[in-house]
Amino acid sequence: QPSELWKETGRWQQYGKELVRLRDRHDRDFCLGPTHEEVVTDLVRKEIRSYRQLPINLYQIQTKFRDEIRPRFGVMRGREFIMKDAYSFDANLDGAKINYQKMYDAYCAIFTRLGLQFRPVEADTGLIGGASSHEFMVLAKTGEEAIIACTTCQYAANVERAPCAGGERTTPVGRGGDAIVSTSTVLSMEKVKTPGQKSVEEVSAFLKVSPQQLIKTLIYLADDKPVAVLVRGDHQVNEIKLRKALNAAFVTLASANEIVKLTGAPCGFSGPIGLSGIEIIGDHAIHGATDMVIGANEADTHYIHLNIDRDVQVARYADLRNAQEGDPCPQCGKPVFIDRGIEVGHVFLLGSKYSKEMKATFLDEKGEEQLFEMGCYGIGISRIMAASIEQNYDDKGIVWPAAMAPFVFHLVPVQDQSEQVMGIAKQIYADLMAKGMSVLFDDRQERPGVKFHDADLLGAPYQIVIGEKNLKQGFIEVKERKTGVATRISVEQAIEHLFQLSVSSQQKANG
Amino acid sequence: QPSELWKETGRWQQYGKELVRLRDRHDRDFCLGPTHEEVVTDLVRKEIRSYRQLPINLYQIQTKFRDEIRPRFGVMRGREFIMKDAYSFDANLDGAKINYQKMYDAYCAIFTRLGLQFRPVEADTGLIGGASSHEFMVLAKTGEEAIIACTTCQYAANVERAPCAGGERTTPVGRGGDAIVSTSTVLSMEKVKTPGQKSVEEVSAFLKVSPQQLIKTLIYLADDKPVAVLVRGDHQVNEIKLRKALNAAFVTLASANEIVKLTGAPCGFSGPIGLSGIEIIGDHAIHGATDMVIGANEADTHYIHLNIDRDVQVARYADLRNAQEGDPCPQCGKPVFIDRGIEVGHVFLLGSKYSKEMKATFLDEKGEEQLFEMGCYGIGISRIMAASIEQNYDDKGIVWPAAMAPFVFHLVPVQDQSEQVMGIAKQIYADLMAKGMSVLFDDRQERPGVKFHDADLLGAPYQIVIGEKNLKQGFIEVKERKTGVATRISVEQAIEHLFQLSVSSQQKANG
Repeated sequence: QPSELWKETGRWQQYGKELVRLRDRHDRDFCLGPTHEEVVTDLVRKEIRSYRQLPINLYQIQTKFRDEIRPRFGVMRGREFIMKDAYSFDANLDGAKINYQKMYDAYCAIFTRLGLQFRPVEADTGLIGGASSHEFMVLAKTGEEAIIACTTCQYAANVERAPCAGGERTTPVGRGGDAIVSTSTVLSMEKVKTPGQKSVEEVSAFLKVSPQQLIKTLIYLADDKPVAVLVRGDHQVNEIKLRKALNAAFVTLASANEIVKLTGAPCGFSGPIGLSGIEIIGDHAIHGATDMVIGANEADTHYIHLNIDRDVQVARYADLRNAQEGDPCPQCGKPVFIDRGIEVGHVFLLGSKYSKEMKATFLDEKGEEQLFEMGCYGIGISRIMAASIEQNYDDKGIVWPAAMAPFVFHLVPVQDQSEQVMGIAKQIYADLMAKGMSVLFDDRQERPGVKFHDADLLGAPYQIVIGEKNLKQGFIEVKERKTGVATRISVEQAIEHLFQLSVSSQQKANG
Repeated sequence: QPSELWKETGRWQQYGKELVRLRDRHDRDFCLGPTHEEVVTDLVRKEIRSYRQLPINLYQIQTKFRDEIRPRFGVMRGREFIMKDAYSFDANLDGAKINYQKMYDAYCAIFTRLGLQFRPVEADTGLIGGASSHEFMVLAKTGEEAIIACTTCQYAANVERAPCAGGERTTPVGRGGDAIVSTSTVLSMEKVKTPGQKSVEEVSAFLKVSPQQLIKTLIYLADDKPVAVLVRGDHQVNEIKLRKALNAAFVTLASANEIVKLTGAPCGFSGPIGLSGIEIIGDHAIHGATDMVIGANEADTHYIHLNIDRDVQVARYADLRNAQEGDPCPQCGKPVFIDRGIEVGHVFLLGSKYSKEMKATFLDEKGEEQLFEMGCYGIGISRIMAASIEQNYDDKGIVWPAAMAPFVFHLVPVQDQSEQVMGIAKQIYADLMAKGMSVLFDDRQERPGVKFHDADLLGAPYQIVIGEKNLKQGFIEVKERKTGVATRISVEQAIEHLFQLSVSSQQKANG
């Protein structure tokens, strides 16, 4: 993709190192497409002139490239992967919302047909941007993404996106113990030595307090300006929320050297007291907290008995942390739990973000220029294969759902030296192929055990086993991979039976 | 693809500017794959250890990238395109030849099924290398490639590759006229003024001789060493043959400045006489030529009455020119003609070129390490679409062969406001889709003329036309795009008829 388009939207800068950049033989700058908003918006602004041509929804299935910092788990997170992406263009936001909902529904239908257990969750819009978005998460213990889900209502969201209670004062001491609450207002702040104790775990163990009684002070650079970020000891800073709260393009943790320079103390002992020229921003959960432990900006030193309102000048409070198990649900207030998932789809209601930046307009009924209202929609095709395996396997190997199986039938002739067995096997193979069925024919000269083992490992939904013993009685065997149940069917009825099996397994998937 | 693999074979250097190179976020060198010999050989040397695992043939359908100097004609020559490529590995050369022949036959079957008029031709192995290769050319007047084909036997070759008669003495004068032959041995070489006459056309017109009586002297740099290349005035230097004859990695024409420096005269007047420190190499066709015209290494000056054997020290003769119309066929000696084609497939018998360079071995029956014998095979999938259109179109638009058509049926309801018409159209669409047929349903609200025009332009093999008039009598119409022949069929029998039409058009394609 030509760099010029990415410069129009500013993403040539914003996308950072994940964007693979290159120069062609004429020294022009290009990138390898990680996503196609710019390219498709450019196409549409050139081709679509009138509201009468709207709505449209363009899609492609194509290779995408992202220079992941840690590519891993094969097709689960590669730097090159196959994606289905679509881009909708509407004359107004109501239309865009209809297209968004249609695509949301279509994605639910696709993942259902593929036999996946999944959950649509509210998601952050990240580098794509826009008004709102949903991720489609395949639920799996090994999933990279944490999902906040309500124990009671239907609420679910990516942990990066789930809002944490703000506004009302939360008492961090609720978990720490009542005793501390009662003494909190009377004790004055006091310096104590904490030699070599840097982490929350170390300090809380050393001072014999719970992690909830600590306040972590993290020094960030927000667009190169230093900021001290205060969160409770058991909470994690959410950099997406922090970036938004600071209205910054980038936030990065300060390096060890920068921390020494800014606070006068080594990493692990930072605190808000005595800092100068650094904005102090606090997470809602520490607002009003009393009797806390915090770094003193001196090596091997912390303060105890800190009352945040009394002792610290916090510029402002905001939602800066990841949601976590037990937090109240943002919709119903009941506690949430954490589930894990693999993102296989993502839909974004973009609005006019890209059309505005790229001056992509059409003429409305009155002949006036209007910005397109857009949506964009992606399915990670190669990743779905891995996600399905995470949900559908046993100790023998993969169990493919019929709609996703590379082959519906795995054909195993048991005695590959037998002319009768191979003759029938070849005939069945030819007949099924002629009917458009997908069949993997194991015509290797291998022991039956090896073939059965491989058939289980590869995981086609049905194994067709052709052996001398059954053949003598006029039968072949069909084994369902998922249940292991084997059925004998007569050779004469085999093709019709297998055809029906394939059709009905597809219909089952379609609900 | 990691640069390390390309450095093993030396192609990181050899491939030149067509190879798209880039660095990842960790500053490691990569290229975008223009072809996959290195990557696949690396895979196989890691996975295949024994002759018992051979032969194998690995294939993929995937995006390739080549930084073409002149990308053009849409998918005909793009910098990004879709390719089917396959790589065969055998235990010995005989096995590799069998795999090569199988693939050759499969390619013939594929292009036949796709309804293309094509011709397999002997081809140069180029940057891929190896022992021999064939290109599959779709014949088209607009084709970029010139093919030499025999008027009599089955011989055909890429013009770059076709050998030209060598060894025996050819008399260039045969075409020039008998008169010159008779005087050729008696006249001495003589300098004549040719003011401002540089090209073969200009000089031959000025001196009133045929272009066949001229010898062109082209100054090349072969791996930076200057070489004077002598070919007959009506012949074209073939740089691939020249590079091979000189055993050079690169050959490029000297610049105007370099010519002045090397010959003492401006471009257009170069000749072999008086050159020092420059190797002189001649094409077979000038060997023994008499009474010729040649540059004199002085501005505005040529020699006439040159006898090559008498007057010039030619270091050696070789096949250095492109074959051309009328040349004798290398197989049967009858004259060849020139056809034009579009390359859509290419097969290479690689032998052990890559396995040797990459130390890719397996253990043979005796437990000894042996190099894999390889072949590689490619089909330009996106280009085939364009090539098919070049062969199958009329003044209304594309005429897709059934096997390649994006849609077999184009469904046109004539009166889109009529409930009856739209009802039948939707029913036929649903029924055909349920049978797995591919149908494009023109459900736009447009005038019939617009719909028919677009249906012809898009070129689906069959148009299903549903109009009120026919419907009243219980009929719909099917029009074959290729012939324009329209047939009325009853609504009741429509689905079965259309299904049979689709099946038989596919079977026809399969021969």
